[in-house]
Amino acid sequence: MPEFTHIENDRASMVDISEKKDVSRQATAGGRIYLRPETLDAIKNGDVIKGNVLATARVAGIMAAKHTSNLIPMCHPIPVSSVSVDFEFGEDESYIEAKCTAKTFGRTGIEMEALTGVSVALLTVWDMVKSAEKDEDGQYPETGIEDVHVIEKIKG
Amino acid sequence: MPEFTHIENDRASMVDISEKKDVSRQATAGGRIYLRPETLDAIKNGDVIKGNVLATARVAGIMAAKHTSNLIPMCHPIPVSSVSVDFEFGEDESYIEAKCTAKTFGRTGIEMEALTGVSVALLTVWDMVKSAEKDEDGQYPETGIEDVHVIEKIKG
Amino acid sequence: MPEFTHIENDRASMVDISEKKDVSRQATAGGRIYLRPETLDAIKNGDVIKGNVLATARVAGIMAAKHTSNLIPMCHPIPVSSVSVDFEFGEDESYIEAKCTAKTFGRTGIEMEALTGVSVALLTVWDMVKSAEKDEDGQYPETGIEDVHVIEKIKG
Amino acid sequence: MPEFTHIENDRASMVDISEKKDVSRQATAGGRIYLRPETLDAIKNGDVIKGNVLATARVAGIMAAKHTSNLIPMCHPIPVSSVSVDFEFGEDESYIEAKCTAKTFGRTGIEMEALTGVSVALLTVWDMVKSAEKDEDGQYPETGIEDVHVIEKIKG
Amino acid sequence: MPEFTHIENDRASMVDISEKKDVSRQATAGGRIYLRPETLDAIKNGDVIKGNVLATARVAGIMAAKHTSNLIPMCHPIPVSSVSVDFEFGEDESYIEAKCTAKTFGRTGIEMEALTGVSVALLTVWDMVKSAEKDEDGQYPETGIEDVHVIEKIKG
Amino acid sequence: MPEFTHIENDRASMVDISEKKDVSRQATAGGRIYLRPETLDAIKNGDVIKGNVLATARVAGIMAAKHTSNLIPMCHPIPVSSVSVDFEFGEDESYIEAKCTAKTFGRTGIEMEALTGVSVALLTVWDMVKSAEKDEDGQYPETGIEDVHVIEKIKG
Repeated sequence: MPEFTHIENDRASMVDISEKKDVSRQATAGGRIYLRPETLDAIKNGDVIKGNVLATARVAGIMAAKHTSNLIPMCHPIPVSSVSVDFEFGEDESYIEAKCTAKTFGRTGIEMEALTGVSVALLTVWDMVKSAEKDEDGQYPETGIEDVHVIEKIKG
Repeated sequence: MPEFTHIENDRASMVDISEKKDVSRQATAGGRIYLRPETLDAIKNGDVIKGNVLATARVAGIMAAKHTSNLIPMCHPIPVSSVSVDFEFGEDESYIEAKCTAKTFGRTGIEMEALTGVSVALLTVWDMVKSAEKDEDGQYPETGIEDVHVIEKIKG
Repeated sequence: MPEFTHIENDRASMVDISEKKDVSRQATAGGRIYLRPETLDAIKNGDVIKGNVLATARVAGIMAAKHTSNLIPMCHPIPVSSVSVDFEFGEDESYIEAKCTAKTFGRTGIEMEALTGVSVALLTVWDMVKSAEKDEDGQYPETGIEDVHVIEKIKG
Repeated sequence: MPEFTHIENDRASMVDISEKKDVSRQATAGGRIYLRPETLDAIKNGDVIKGNVLATARVAGIMAAKHTSNLIPMCHPIPVSSVSVDFEFGEDESYIEAKCTAKTFGRTGIEMEALTGVSVALLTVWDMVKSAEKDEDGQYPETGIEDVHVIEKIKG
Repeated sequence: MPEFTHIENDRASMVDISEKKDVSRQATAGGRIYLRPETLDAIKNGDVIKGNVLATARVAGIMAAKHTSNLIPMCHPIPVSSVSVDFEFGEDESYIEAKCTAKTFGRTGIEMEALTGVSVALLTVWDMVKSAEKDEDGQYPETGIEDVHVIEKIKG
Repeated sequence: MPEFTHIENDRASMVDISEKKDVSRQATAGGRIYLRPETLDAIKNGDVIKGNVLATARVAGIMAAKHTSNLIPMCHPIPVSSVSVDFEFGEDESYIEAKCTAKTFGRTGIEMEALTGVSVALLTVWDMVKSAEKDEDGQYPETGIEDVHVIEKIKG
């Protein structure tokens, strides 16, 4: 049976990392937001729009990565030593891809920080283009976040 | 060209909602986390594991929904009047589906709160089953968050 | 059987207050911290110590009251319109009593804010006198928080 | 005269721990919430109610313990390496007892984190059973938090 | 003698605004950061540097304005309905000027939000150009924030 | 050309400090708030007013210094080991001067924490004397924060 280290004596708790060693750790997570073609066009071809949407999402993602242990109940606070967030346009004109890399010299992995950074960066893109994505009924038939995953974890 | 109300005079800013009316508003967002079959089995068939994983994720999602305007830079603080988070198991034994419904009586829509609630609930499920999802190299080849979308927005 | 409005369909959720009316609401909570006689003497007779201990605890309690909905998962964010924190010395030289009054014009009661304000004010007193309360083994045989309760709730 | 290390040159300040050594540290705090017999019965005998009340309070307590240095003004941020929160029913059917154990490998004691975790866990129990504890006038004649104390501090 | 409404019965407390009316309110605050000529040149003439420095500072200022009541102890939480942050270069090549405008429909003025937004925006500019402003000893002989003031408050 | 370490590959990011050594670090920042003579007189000559204004501002500054990495997007979370905030009255009866000293044993400088501590302490003084500084039109013609600078950074 799989192991669930955050559940001990039948109760959720923060797994004890007191005895673990401080090690260099790094994680990269990625994810995509699917948008309307016109919205993507406006972002790709408009420096002002692109700059503002992506800069705002980048800052939000970096701040969220540092905030992870306040959002995810059993996450340990770890001394984040670097976070970066990057964006690329999908080849088929339908999505923006975000990647977040986080590093620490600490006692536990940093993948939740990278995943939180990517998720909040993508949510911020959504918020920044809300008015362009809503249909006449105020719904979002084409907008969606997909494929949020850990690309790579490195330890040591 | 699509409209970007969060960008004014070439700069990102919080759109002014001073003149909007307070109205009953509600939004429901959904999303899925794909997990290993053994992890899903352990959750479905183990009351202790299920209870702890899902209760922790529910609380995290509700708290995150209330915290949205601190995470998403241009989001307005709104008086959240209700948040709930629910989980269902996918029929094909490969994922857990989360839904978050948020309500307010306020001047702007509450879909970012519902989306943030769902996203953090799914990230918390991930964190709670990390030890069961990692392969021998510490990677997550099967884990992923998909299909984060707005199911419905209701106004008035 | 008693009613549990924060549990609906077998799940914890924030009770829906969308349909409730905005009303003037007020709550006062109280609580005590028991301390060593020498610590209490030093606080009562030393203006500098008293000023610093109680002013710091007052500010902490007021800030915590405003922060309640970020600490208590199912609490609604409410527009706190006033908070005050007060201290009195117990007659028998063994404790300090704190009271916190919070007010709002809102849709739900404000007693959790008053209770949180009192609790954090008392915890801050503890922190401020830690060095005076510890015994030679670093333990706190005499320190304790007691009688945290709601003195009065007023609605309308 | 007792020592007040958080007051220096007549002013409140965070005591300087730059020269202290990193050491394994652990603290356990406890406390009780007194409730109406019917409320306690409903919690003890109803799996759904018990599960939701205690799981929510546990998560809140763990998150609050990590948040301590943001609540208590002179508390140092410390790298919390583990937190757990547990509940027991009092023998005489009148209260629930909470315990919180926090661990760190750091330069200062972790008792304020354990005390904050217990306090917020008990406040969350209160919030979860509010509707069952209020009398017909909306008052709480029987509810109270008592005996919040440090059970044990361990260093090294 | 001047009035100090945040001090009542000899104690700091949040002034009671329960009886005040909701009114449209707006405040604009300004401030300057003085920088080395070479740093200013690099920002003015480098689109990449300018974009990143000012976009990051703008986002930080907007988020801080929303966070004001968590930073300033006696500030009321108010429903911020809009915040914007702008930058201009001083005519004499020695400083950047920031302005922050905040709006609310609420019971108390919003000038502390505007001032907090400007202050954090300027601190963020400083952080973004730290490496360019430090001299060989790691000191900042030329960097300084000046003239943080309220430009205008509008009520009704 | 000056170096901008927070901008890498044309994007804002937290500079990587993984490879830097933990070292004792200290920074002191200062700043002034100019006030009306009558306000300053009331503070200087009224123990109650002085005590409340300065104690509240001191606590706010210390808490803000610990909160710096949540306010300034590219700031690293660092283990703050001490913060103190002090006030002096200017010789010419026109301002209060604040100083904030912060210490850490960490991988990056602590001047942003000291600057944030001073800035929020001064903003809190402003908030505490708002009612005394406003003119009949609700404006602040005489109030201003000036000369926020780093007095000294010490490393090792």
